[in-house]
Amino acid sequence: AGKSNHNTGGRYVDFRVSVVLPAGGTGERTGLLTPKQFCSFLGRPLISYTIQAFERVSWIRSVVVVVAKENMDLMMDIIQRFQHQRVRVVPGGSTRHRSICNGVMALGEGETPAADRPEVVIIHDAVRPFVDEDFLHKIATAAKEQGAAGAIRPLVSTVIATTSEGYLDHSLERVKYRASEMPQGFTYDVIRQAYQRCTESDFEFGTECLHLALQYCGTNAKLIEGPPTLWKVTYKRDLAAAESIIKETLSRTACLITGGSAPAVALAGALRKAAGALEMELDVVPDLAGDNGGYLLKEWNFIQVSVSRRLSEVEALLAALEAANRAVLHPPVVIWVHLSGAGESSAGPEPSAFWDLASRARLRNVLLYGLRLHQSKDAERWERSVLRAAEIASALIQGRSPALVGQLLQA
Amino acid sequence: AGKSNHNTGGRYVDFRVSVVLPAGGTGERTGLLTPKQFCSFLGRPLISYTIQAFERVSWIRSVVVVVAKENMDLMMDIIQRFQHQRVRVVPGGSTRHRSICNGVMALGEGETPAADRPEVVIIHDAVRPFVDEDFLHKIATAAKEQGAAGAIRPLVSTVIATTSEGYLDHSLERVKYRASEMPQGFTYDVIRQAYQRCTESDFEFGTECLHLALQYCGTNAKLIEGPPTLWKVTYKRDLAAAESIIKETLSRTACLITGGSAPAVALAGALRKAAGALEMELDVVPDLAGDNGGYLLKEWNFIQVSVSRRLSEVEALLAALEAANRAVLHPPVVIWVHLSGAGESSAGPEPSAFWDLASRARLRNVLLYGLRLHQSKDAERWERSVLRAAEIASALIQGRSPALVGQLLQA
Ligand SMILES: [Mg+2]
Ligand SMILES: [Mg+2]
Repeated sequence: AGKSNHNTGGRYVDFRVSVVLPAGGTGERTGLLTPKQFCSFLGRPLISYTIQAFERVSWIRSVVVVVAKENMDLMMDIIQRFQHQRVRVVPGGSTRHRSICNGVMALGEGETPAADRPEVVIIHDAVRPFVDEDFLHKIATAAKEQGAAGAIRPLVSTVIATTSEGYLDHSLERVKYRASEMPQGFTYDVIRQAYQRCTESDFEFGTECLHLALQYCGTNAKLIEGPPTLWKVTYKRDLAAAESIIKETLSRTACLITGGSAPAVALAGALRKAAGALEMELDVVPDLAGDNGGYLLKEWNFIQVSVSRRLSEVEALLAALEAANRAVLHPPVVIWVHLSGAGESSAGPEPSAFWDLASRARLRNVLLYGLRLHQSKDAERWERSVLRAAEIASALIQGRSPALVGQLLQA
Repeated sequence: AGKSNHNTGGRYVDFRVSVVLPAGGTGERTGLLTPKQFCSFLGRPLISYTIQAFERVSWIRSVVVVVAKENMDLMMDIIQRFQHQRVRVVPGGSTRHRSICNGVMALGEGETPAADRPEVVIIHDAVRPFVDEDFLHKIATAAKEQGAAGAIRPLVSTVIATTSEGYLDHSLERVKYRASEMPQGFTYDVIRQAYQRCTESDFEFGTECLHLALQYCGTNAKLIEGPPTLWKVTYKRDLAAAESIIKETLSRTACLITGGSAPAVALAGALRKAAGALEMELDVVPDLAGDNGGYLLKEWNFIQVSVSRRLSEVEALLAALEAANRAVLHPPVVIWVHLSGAGESSAGPEPSAFWDLASRARLRNVLLYGLRLHQSKDAERWERSVLRAAEIASALIQGRSPALVGQLLQA
């Protein structure tokens, strides 16, 4: 249920579209042992993010992931663990083109009735997780009209031709050239024919699908400038950039649950203002009953304010997150804010009980942190505490650090 | 004193080398208001990191930074605040080439005796902070020999030529082309002549200094493949990647000070082992007297173990860091580990006193965190606590979060 946030955005596609996702790379350029597509961010492999990007698009019928034979089991585990739908896995070939070709052919295998074959095939990279529906729509539509379409980006560096001795021969005029990126789209007939007609040498050394469509089908691909987020995770530094984008996406908003008491509601208002200055938007609700239950399906961060030292409210929230299956794709953050000096007792919470609760939550992929705040009658002091609470909450939500779960911090 | 870690590495340069650092860019591609070179990482602007990369190299005599007129004051402030040496600031022109030309000409102004002019000029980008001495040496040496030399990298994407209607014309054979990167090096005579002879159109639309050297001086530049870290901070995602590299560089090691007591020494050994599994190397010392004082000049992370609840040891460490002027370039992290149940009293530290100390340290750019650990006779429980302490320390050191200073965490 947590995954069904289809973003239809008013776009309509009246032809059948499927995706081929080559994921056979060995990742030698990152300098890591794990191929990039299987590197984890917040406990989840990159390729799962890329698959999710396509699952969010209602008009995409199926995704064929092509992986090296030795990674078939790993890939099946990922699909099961993160509950991916509409995905098939097929074994790759010895080169990128052979792998893509296997994926394309799998879409039209012998038994497939013509009316079930895709009319347009989108080819993408497993290591470009941030593709959005709007751009996929542009590529699919142009491919249907022109036979082929591809993403391009401006060149970041000047491109130069080198002599065989390693000297400058000439530099290219930057304005006439573009970097060819992914996704690309083809009508099923064009991409199938291109692979049926191309040579062993193309299979072995070719890099550009658009080139095969031109050479073997006479199809001039339409080129469409894509956003910078289409970039390919290639080097180790790209892993950090991808993680930062994923964390930022998860950290923009939080749902603050007051429980309804007057001191908690007042604190919530002040926290919302302070968080706003830190570029985090807080939605304040008394509880998650009725329509507010929707937050359990869409929000990744929860702040539960309690005026009591009892943990029952935060326990109820954890149970509701579990019932909503919320932690399948990302670890949600829950911050329990204990406001003392305002309620029944000013005694602090029991650290070991909170620690145990956080340890149990961690096993279900929920990150639980605690924050103590003492209600002060000194206005200036109170304002400082609230600002600090907002800063700490924002740092915890942005950091999503498993090492800090179960801590009771002081604002 | 904290900056004088010259990395001579046995390299010898017997000619005069200066650097021109164009930093006039407006940074529109990051989508941020601040130009990239002035974006801050751990409280310090990117350009200061780049300047530091050159200051570390003993054989580089001077750095000329070229900035837009409106940023001259800002740049002078940065040089003063981060105590940069051997740096001059000159105003930029309306294009990149005009700015570089201003920088080159500033190196040989009328009054400069010929014997003080550089023989080789290295041109670099302010937004490529991770250049190392080894590669600078290669560029300078090749420039001295060949007249011109430049860094290249393999192309990440296929480069394609587009028709005027936005269709694929042809794709380039990747193996014959390279991306031209920075740094580049020239003999002073070649780069000065190239700028004296080139046209207004070159100044206005040209992008490649190597091209000017070829066209106006007949100098074929030697091309040298550089490491991936030469990449240019261009997009918003690159800011996250740069921050992650800076944090990783600062987080590989820590100095653990035991104070000499037997329980602290035992804890230190266990923490060192646990940290090793988290890829952090701990150097254990009893105190910072004698030769161990060297850590104050080179280490960015300190863990002070105390068996007493008194803060005198951590106060002495903070004073020593201040005396060593350690916090000029980066905020050092200090983690005070209070080991209870082993010493004179098992009472915990006073949270408000620790908070006040951390607040004062923060004003001097030191990040102070607290960690409580209770000595347990249960071996399994003790092992878990030590592991957790290592995880928390590692997370604090890697995160370097100002929002969490002054917290007393529990391991
Ligand atoms: Mg590719
Ligand atoms: Mg450049």
